[in-house]
Amino acid sequence: MTERTLRGRAAIVGIGETPYYKHGQSPVPEFRLALQAILNACADAGVHPHDIDGFAGFSNDRCDPSRLAAALGCKRLRSTTMQWGGGGGGCAAAVGNAAAAVAAGLADCVVVFRSIVQSSAQGQHGRFGQAKTDATAGAEMAWMAPYGVQSPAQKYAFKVQRYMHEHGVQQAALRAVALASYHHAQRNPRAVMFGKPLDEAKYDASRWIVEPFHLFDLCQENDGAAAVIVVAAERAKDFKATPAYLLAMASGSDHRTFANPVNAPRYASASFVGVAQDLFRMARLTPADMGSVQAYENFTGGVLMALAEHGFFKPEEANDFMQLHNLVAPGGRLPLNTSGGNLAEGYIHGMELVLEAVRQLRGSSTAQAARRDAALVIGGPLISPVSSLILGSEAAL
Amino acid sequence: MTERTLRGRAAIVGIGETPYYKHGQSPVPEFRLALQAILNACADAGVHPHDIDGFAGFSNDRCDPSRLAAALGCKRLRSTTMQWGGGGGGCAAAVGNAAAAVAAGLADCVVVFRSIVQSSAQGQHGRFGQAKTDATAGAEMAWMAPYGVQSPAQKYAFKVQRYMHEHGVQQAALRAVALASYHHAQRNPRAVMFGKPLDEAKYDASRWIVEPFHLFDLCQENDGAAAVIVVAAERAKDFKATPAYLLAMASGSDHRTFANPVNAPRYASASFVGVAQDLFRMARLTPADMGSVQAYENFTGGVLMALAEHGFFKPEEANDFMQLHNLVAPGGRLPLNTSGGNLAEGYIHGMELVLEAVRQLRGSSTAQAARRDAALVIGGPLISPVSSLILGSEAAL
Repeated sequence: MTERTLRGRAAIVGIGETPYYKHGQSPVPEFRLALQAILNACADAGVHPHDIDGFAGFSNDRCDPSRLAAALGCKRLRSTTMQWGGGGGGCAAAVGNAAAAVAAGLADCVVVFRSIVQSSAQGQHGRFGQAKTDATAGAEMAWMAPYGVQSPAQKYAFKVQRYMHEHGVQQAALRAVALASYHHAQRNPRAVMFGKPLDEAKYDASRWIVEPFHLFDLCQENDGAAAVIVVAAERAKDFKATPAYLLAMASGSDHRTFANPVNAPRYASASFVGVAQDLFRMARLTPADMGSVQAYENFTGGVLMALAEHGFFKPEEANDFMQLHNLVAPGGRLPLNTSGGNLAEGYIHGMELVLEAVRQLRGSSTAQAARRDAALVIGGPLISPVSSLILGSEAAL
Repeated sequence: MTERTLRGRAAIVGIGETPYYKHGQSPVPEFRLALQAILNACADAGVHPHDIDGFAGFSNDRCDPSRLAAALGCKRLRSTTMQWGGGGGGCAAAVGNAAAAVAAGLADCVVVFRSIVQSSAQGQHGRFGQAKTDATAGAEMAWMAPYGVQSPAQKYAFKVQRYMHEHGVQQAALRAVALASYHHAQRNPRAVMFGKPLDEAKYDASRWIVEPFHLFDLCQENDGAAAVIVVAAERAKDFKATPAYLLAMASGSDHRTFANPVNAPRYASASFVGVAQDLFRMARLTPADMGSVQAYENFTGGVLMALAEHGFFKPEEANDFMQLHNLVAPGGRLPLNTSGGNLAEGYIHGMELVLEAVRQLRGSSTAQAARRDAALVIGGPLISPVSSLILGSEAAL
């Protein structure tokens, strides 16, 4: 009987991205950005674009694989999967879906990608949002809209506020996420916030968007694309770059979309309780084994909650753990968002976090962590479904 | 090294559907239809709905898995995948994606489903169509719209016409597909066309929609939902129903969406040339091993082309092979669309074909084929991407 796992079955052998632009600043459309990121990933791996035979997407990416395959000149188009849901909940799952396809023999060389031009069409949630029937949208909005709650920041502020109340979490613990991201971005020329440092005073003085979120607690909105190439583990050494092996992926949710307001007792959850258990079980590792963490910041509070749910600290320890010196590379206990992440590098719905985890394993990050054997990526918290993955070096297999 | 295959790794252990309605006749919304089909599949398998932990969709189904999980009371929500693309190209792939998730340990009990209320929201292509950027839609329509070509029937008529020209295929070969579907539907009380037989004269007298398609060459548009439950093969015998094991799934395309008009030399293709090779290789079977075929009829011509591309006959043999007596159960050489298929049972984007293939293996079809060891399902031809799967009995493993 074949073991039912992704552990050691697939590897990322190439990474590529476009420049990351401020919202609306991309000089080319989403489709061109996607191609550019994919070609860069191919060059990194030494893969000819003609040999790509699969595409894995998430967040309802608008770049149709059939068109991408035509534009890239792919000899075959085989696997084409999309992780359900919007935002960054699927950035890890898309890699896992690609790995599952490769492990099942459904494709040999799968590109996982995300391309965003926020100003085009209806923006990031265009396709997802439009898919809701009136009845569905009504079911969600009936709980929210009468009270003026419409934006994601507003909706998730409630959950974070509740979590802070229940566990005595201070504002400074959220601030530490923003400080770490901006700290690392100052070393990363790709980062949109490169050259724009953030300190405690600047954070504290920034305006509230919706309590407990200051301006700097919210992700940017950016234009850009990022891609990785996934192949079967046994082929991983045939390519130019050092392979990053997939040790585990888990996706899912503790929440139920549109049932959020009545989802007690887990209302104040980032939705990773079950996912994190699955993840570490498949990886046969513990939180203490992670050399670095890239954690999706739609909002800083979600990062804190997600880290706690992944077992890095108990909620009551958040104020102690979430301090800048603990979160920086190389000296911190848990180097966090070492590229600058969604807050300060670029908001490519977390796909840029997957690339940074690969860099950490290769030793090529601009904010390199000391340990290069295992790297964790946490997809968009608070939403549904979410996902996480663990990448490892050959030594970790 | 673990073999990269889906062969024998997963099984369908439950099937369920709603009544199939004429377009616009469903008394309840899509979401309710989906739940009804899923609950019926659970009852068939003896699975408690609380134990479902994954959902696999296609054709941009609008029923969000998070909401489905909430409504069903699922204890866990884990894998949630969507096959890219519209129409029925993904009906087999969605089963394969569920199987890949189960084989990879990403979920234990995955529902594959399709729910359609054509009159709700924007209909079957609402979500997919809306996802196109202006530039994308323009690229396709620039080749078509100036000549008055806008509907799927118009677009695919060109390909079928070309295929008929190149290989000397007669109209009677297309007609045989419609006759077989209606023939089988007369034995199937679920079929929308139950009690409405079709004969040669009625077909010949029916109006042209667009040459070479008469009225009866086109699928219906229906409301309804269908679902199957996929588990790991080693658990397959723990459930009430006889398992239908997945012997192979392949998806992909020879075409490139939006490049169709310039896609020579394979312009006149149903897009299964590469897919069929992958499929039979994974199954370690040949076309001669198939006891029955359920082939997605958006248009009869596509069925003929898909059957040829799966190796059942050479294009030049189509007129000989595609005759009613060859296509009926139980006596025919290749029992085709034994439930009535899209033309005469119900157009649930091919998901109803997957259920019928399971019935063939169980021996419970209303038009039972003689051989019950292997059954083929061919997803929507002509579009991109497409998919096929082979289910087999325990003896075929």
